[in-house]
Amino acid sequence: ILEGLIYSALCCLKKVLRFNFQSIDVNRELDLMLFSEPGISNYSTLLLSEEHDALYVGAREAIFELSKRNVTLRNNKVQWTVAEDPMTMCTLKGKSKERDCLNYIRVLQLVDAERLYVCGTHAFQPQCDYLNLADFSLAGRPEDGRGKCSFDPTQSFTTVMVDGELYSGTAYNFLGSEPIISRYSPSQSLLRTEYSTSWLNEPSFVYADVIRGGEHEEDGEDDKIYYFFTEVSVEYEFFGKLLIPRVARVCQGDLGGQRTLQKKWTSFLKAKLVCSMPELNFVFNVVHDVFILRASEPKETVIYGVFTSQWGNVGLSAVCAYDMRAVEEVFSKGKYMQKATVEQSHTKWVRFNGITPSPRPGACINNQMRQQNITNSLHLPDKTLQFVRDHPLLEDTVLPIGNRPRLITKDVNYTQLVVERVQALDRNIYDVIFTGTDKGVLHKSVVFEGGVHMVEELQLTKNSEPIKTLLLSSETRSLYAGSDSGVAQSPTAFCSKYLFCDDCIMARDPYCAWDPPTAACVNIMDAPSQLIQSLDGNADKCPAGKSFDYQRVSVKPGSSAELPCLLRSNLAQVLWRSNGSVLTDASRFHLVTENGLLIYSVAPEDQGSYECWSVELAAAVGKNFSRLLVRYILTLDLPPGPAPRSG
Amino acid sequence: ILEGLIYSALCCLKKVLRFNFQSIDVNRELDLMLFSEPGISNYSTLLLSEEHDALYVGAREAIFELSKRNVTLRNNKVQWTVAEDPMTMCTLKGKSKERDCLNYIRVLQLVDAERLYVCGTHAFQPQCDYLNLADFSLAGRPEDGRGKCSFDPTQSFTTVMVDGELYSGTAYNFLGSEPIISRYSPSQSLLRTEYSTSWLNEPSFVYADVIRGGEHEEDGEDDKIYYFFTEVSVEYEFFGKLLIPRVARVCQGDLGGQRTLQKKWTSFLKAKLVCSMPELNFVFNVVHDVFILRASEPKETVIYGVFTSQWGNVGLSAVCAYDMRAVEEVFSKGKYMQKATVEQSHTKWVRFNGITPSPRPGACINNQMRQQNITNSLHLPDKTLQFVRDHPLLEDTVLPIGNRPRLITKDVNYTQLVVERVQALDRNIYDVIFTGTDKGVLHKSVVFEGGVHMVEELQLTKNSEPIKTLLLSSETRSLYAGSDSGVAQSPTAFCSKYLFCDDCIMARDPYCAWDPPTAACVNIMDAPSQLIQSLDGNADKCPAGKSFDYQRVSVKPGSSAELPCLLRSNLAQVLWRSNGSVLTDASRFHLVTENGLLIYSVAPEDQGSYECWSVELAAAVGKNFSRLLVRYILTLDLPPGPAPRSG
Repeated sequence: ILEGLIYSALCCLKKVLRFNFQSIDVNRELDLMLFSEPGISNYSTLLLSEEHDALYVGAREAIFELSKRNVTLRNNKVQWTVAEDPMTMCTLKGKSKERDCLNYIRVLQLVDAERLYVCGTHAFQPQCDYLNLADFSLAGRPEDGRGKCSFDPTQSFTTVMVDGELYSGTAYNFLGSEPIISRYSPSQSLLRTEYSTSWLNEPSFVYADVIRGGEHEEDGEDDKIYYFFTEVSVEYEFFGKLLIPRVARVCQGDLGGQRTLQKKWTSFLKAKLVCSMPELNFVFNVVHDVFILRASEPKETVIYGVFTSQWGNVGLSAVCAYDMRAVEEVFSKGKYMQKATVEQSHTKWVRFNGITPSPRPGACINNQMRQQNITNSLHLPDKTLQFVRDHPLLEDTVLPIGNRPRLITKDVNYTQLVVERVQALDRNIYDVIFTGTDKGVLHKSVVFEGGVHMVEELQLTKNSEPIKTLLLSSETRSLYAGSDSGVAQSPTAFCSKYLFCDDCIMARDPYCAWDPPTAACVNIMDAPSQLIQSLDGNADKCPAGKSFDYQRVSVKPGSSAELPCLLRSNLAQVLWRSNGSVLTDASRFHLVTENGLLIYSVAPEDQGSYECWSVELAAAVGKNFSRLLVRYILTLDLPPGPAPRSG
Repeated sequence: ILEGLIYSALCCLKKVLRFNFQSIDVNRELDLMLFSEPGISNYSTLLLSEEHDALYVGAREAIFELSKRNVTLRNNKVQWTVAEDPMTMCTLKGKSKERDCLNYIRVLQLVDAERLYVCGTHAFQPQCDYLNLADFSLAGRPEDGRGKCSFDPTQSFTTVMVDGELYSGTAYNFLGSEPIISRYSPSQSLLRTEYSTSWLNEPSFVYADVIRGGEHEEDGEDDKIYYFFTEVSVEYEFFGKLLIPRVARVCQGDLGGQRTLQKKWTSFLKAKLVCSMPELNFVFNVVHDVFILRASEPKETVIYGVFTSQWGNVGLSAVCAYDMRAVEEVFSKGKYMQKATVEQSHTKWVRFNGITPSPRPGACINNQMRQQNITNSLHLPDKTLQFVRDHPLLEDTVLPIGNRPRLITKDVNYTQLVVERVQALDRNIYDVIFTGTDKGVLHKSVVFEGGVHMVEELQLTKNSEPIKTLLLSSETRSLYAGSDSGVAQSPTAFCSKYLFCDDCIMARDPYCAWDPPTAACVNIMDAPSQLIQSLDGNADKCPAGKSFDYQRVSVKPGSSAELPCLLRSNLAQVLWRSNGSVLTDASRFHLVTENGLLIYSVAPEDQGSYECWSVELAAAVGKNFSRLLVRYILTLDLPPGPAPRSG
C-alpha cells in the first residue's frame, strides 16, 4: 500500500512540460543573452542594482558591470589578481596554482551609492576591498577577509550586507574545518558563533538575509538575520551522518555578552526545517537554496526552499514554502533541546523540561527587557547567556505550508530557485517558481490550488553546467543565471512564442494572454487591455481560428509522399484525418512521424484530403482542445492517358 | 562528487538485458506452464516434495497437489472452508466476509512421508490440521493455530518445520499487534518470545530456516533456527520510524528457563543485517526475502537477501550475500547492546561494556556447559537468563560479502529470490540469482568476478501481479512462482531459444553451451560433451556461420521497398551495408526501423546488395561480434524498354 501511494503521488507531479527549449541553437529565437569573456571563469557571484541599472558579476580574478537590460553589454571591468607572495604561500601549503591559488570573487555588496564591498578567496588568504563605482576601480587597501569570505573557492558560503554590516556564513580557517556565522562591522570587532558542534556541525551554508519588522515589531524587537544551511544532525542517530536542513537567526542589535559570550552571538538559535511527505515517511533533508518572497505586509513573507534527499541518487527534488509567521513562532516560543549524558560516554539530545531563565535565552532585546533596564545584549544576565550558549537548538520544527512540498520533480537535482508573485487577469495572485538544475536547465512552474503546473523547460548553460546563482528582476522581467562559463539572461516569459490563441491559453502561464485585435500572445504587463487568459487552460474563449486553404501535393504512383506537420506542444497528440476518417497506425503504408505523415507507396486509393490536427487535454477543466494545423490535397500524378471524350 | 559516484555506480549495474520475454503471448514458445482454478485465488504457499514428485499449493480455501514436472497437471485437491459460526464471529468483529473471513492456507509442512501439517487463517481464528497424502484428505481434527499461523491473511508471516516441530514468526492476537516467534511441538508447550519491543518491534517476518552443524559443531552445539525480518529500530533515532533488517536465531534444543524465561526462548538473539553502499551512505534497510544457498560443507553456506530502501520510491532493489561464518561469528562473539535511561523519560541503546555473565547469554548448550552440568536451558543460571532477556540485541552487525550488494537494479521492486549454484564448463562455480518483482517479472542474473550480468527478463504473472512465493527445483530445472492468480512454472534456462552460436555464447548463461554437431544451443546438463561455452561472452570459438544466399527483391521505380531484418538481442546494434559501404541515417530515403530497412522511393542508384548485420559488444572481453543476419539484392523492375541490339 505504501509503495502504491508513493507512485501515485509522483505520477501526478511528474515532469509534464508543454514546451521545452532545450537546444542552445534556439537562443536567438528565445532572446537569451549570454555573457562571458575569454580566459575568465566562475561567474558565480551576482548582484543586481536597481539604482545603477546594473548587474555586477564576481568571477575568477575579475569583477564586471553589465547592463541589466542586456548582459551582453559590458560597461566596466576590473581585474583583481593574486600577487606573487601569497601565491607562493598558497602553493607551499599544497594547493594548486592553476585552480585553488587564484582570487575567486565571492562577496559583492553595495555599501552606498558610490561603493561596493568586494571580497575574494585570494589564494586561500581571503581579502576584501572597496570598489569605487564611478571609475570602477578598487581602493587598493585590502583588508583581512577572514570570516567574511571563504578560503576555499569550492566551499559553501553565504553573505549579506545589512545597513553597512556584513553577515557571513563560512569557514574561519585554512582547512575549512571551523565553521562560523559572523558579523563584520567597520566600527566594531567581529561578532561570531561559538566553535562547538552544538552551534554548527559541518554546515553547508546556503543563504542569509535580513527580515525586517516581523510579528514582534510592536514589542520593539529589532530586525533579524536568518541563515539557512544543511548540517550534520546531533539530535538524531542514523547508520551514518544524518543531514538536517536548518534555519538559524541572530538579532541585528546583538553586541555579544559582557562576561559570558563575549564577542559571541547572544541571540543565535536554530531549528529544523521540515520538507517531507509525512504519509510516505520520505524526507527531503538537504536544502540547496532559499528565496525570500517578500510581501508588502512583512508577516505575509514566504520563504521558499529547494531540497533534495541525502540519498541523492533518488533523483527527487522538492520545493517547500514556509510562512514567516511559523518561523517566528518557533524562535519566539519553541522548546529548547539539551544534551544529556548516557552511561558516561554517549550523549543524547532531549527536550529541556526545566525552568528557562528569564529573559528568554536567544530573544532579541524588546520593550519588556528595556523596562528591566536591559537595553542591549551586554546587559543580559549570565544565566540567560549560559543557557543559550548550551541550548542553541530548538526542539520545535518549522513545518512547510500545507505540511508538504509545493512541488516535487523526479530525475532532476535543483540547485537554485527564485520566485515571483504575479497577479493574473483573473485578479488572483500566483507564485511562479523558477528552479535551476545541476545540468543548467531552468524550470518554470506555477502554483495553482489543485497543484503545480510546469510551464517551461529551458537550457541556460553550455555543456549542461550547473546553475550556481539565479536572480530575478521584476523590473527588467529577466532571470540572470551565473555558471562557471558565463552569465545568461532570460525573459521570465516567452509569450510571443505562442502563435495561436489556444497555445497561449493552454500554456497556463500567468504572464501571458491573448490579444485578439493583434492576434498575438502578449505579456499582460505590456497591454492590460481586453486580453484573453484562462489559467485552467480552458481555451473556449479563443476566437475561431482562421480557415485554411488546402495545400496541393502531387506524386507519382508507387512513390512516397511526405506531408509535414509540426506539433508545438509536448502535451498534445497529433491526429490525421483523411477524407473525413481518422488514420490509425494499423494502416501499413502510413507512418506518423514526429514531423508529419509519410505515405510510402502512394496508391490511387490514397488520393484525397489530409488534415493534421493537434489534440490536447486541458486537465484542469477535463476538456480536449483540437486545432487544425495544416490541410493537404493529395493527387496522383498520372501519365497522360487518352484524352477524355468531350460531351 | 557524491552524486557523480552514485550515478556511476548505477550506470554499470543498470538493467541491461540481452533478451526479454515480456509478453504472456510467448508463454507457449517459452514452455511456461500456468496453473489456476476458477474461483480459487491466493496461490501463495508452495511446498516442493522430492519424495512425492509433487508441488503442494496452499491457496484460498483449497490445497492442491500438482505434478512438479508439469504444474498444469493437478493430481489432488482438497477444500477447507470456514463453517458458519467462526464466519459470523469474524464478521461481527468488523472483518469483511468476502475477503478477510475466509481460510487462507499459509502453512504447508511435511510431517512424515504420509502427512502434511497444514494451517489456515480460518476467518481470523487460525486452525491447523493434518493432511493425509494417500487419499489427500484432512484429518478433520483441527487444532488451535494461534502462534503457528497468522490471523490476518495479509500480514507478514513465516514458518518452517524442523524435525516435526513448527517454528513460526507471526502475530499472536486478533489485532496483529503482538508479534511472536514461537515453536510448536506436539509433545511440549509453546516456546515463545517475550512480548517486549526490545525483542520484537513491529516486525515484518520474511523467512525462517534451520542451519545444521555450523562452525561450532565440534563444540557440541545443536542446530539453530534463523529468522529474518524487518522491524522498527530501537537503537537509532530518525525523523520517523527507521526500519532495520534483522537476523535472529534460536537454538533447537532450547527448553526455556526454569524460573526466569519460563516457556520463553533462552537463546533468542538478534543482530542487524547490513546491505548498503557505504561510500555513498545509501542504505537498503528493508529485507523482503531470504534464500539460504546450502553447500556440501555447512560452513560454505551463503545467505542471500533481497532488499529495498525504506524510502520506497527510489525504485532501487539490491541483493546482498552473507557468509554463514560471519553470521555465526556475530552471534557467538558479538557485543550486546543495553538500554540506558536518559533524563528519566528517554531511552538510548548503547553498547554494554560491563562484565557479561557466564555461560554466555543466548548461547546454545555446548560441551563446555555440559561439563558444568548445564545439559539443557532449564539449568542455565538466572543471571545469564536475566541478561539475555534484557539484552537480546547485539551491537555487532552482519556485513555482506565484499561489503556491498552483489546486485543493484533500478526502477524495480524485488519481492522474492532463489539462487542456484551452477558449475559451468570452465569448471568454475557461478551463483545464478533469480529475482521476482512486485510486477510479476523474473530476472535472472549471474555473478561474475567483475560484476553481475543480467541474462533474462521474463513476465511470469498475468496482469503484472506481484510474485508472492518463488521456489526452485534443481531436479526438474524449474522455477515455481505463486501469485494471487495462479502458479507459474518456468525452466531455469531457455538455451534452445538461442538459434546461433554467438547468441548462445554472448548470452553468458552458465546453463547454456553450443553443440557444434547438432548446431544447437543446449543445456550443459543434457549433453556434457564437446560443447562451446565462454562466460565472458567471447564468441571467437564459434564455428563460422553458414553462408547465406542473397534474396532477390524487385520493385518499381519510385515505390518503396522493405527489407526485413529482426534483431534478437537487446544489446546488439543493427548495421546495414549496401554495395560494401555502411548506410548512415543521413541518407534521407533510408529508414532503419525495428524490423528492417525501409527505402521509400527506390531510385536506380539504390539498386545492388544489402546486408543486415548484428553487431554486439562483449564487454567483458572488449570485443565486437558481428553476424550477418540476411542479404538482399535489390533491383528495379523496369518497364520493358527497346530490346538491346544483338552484337
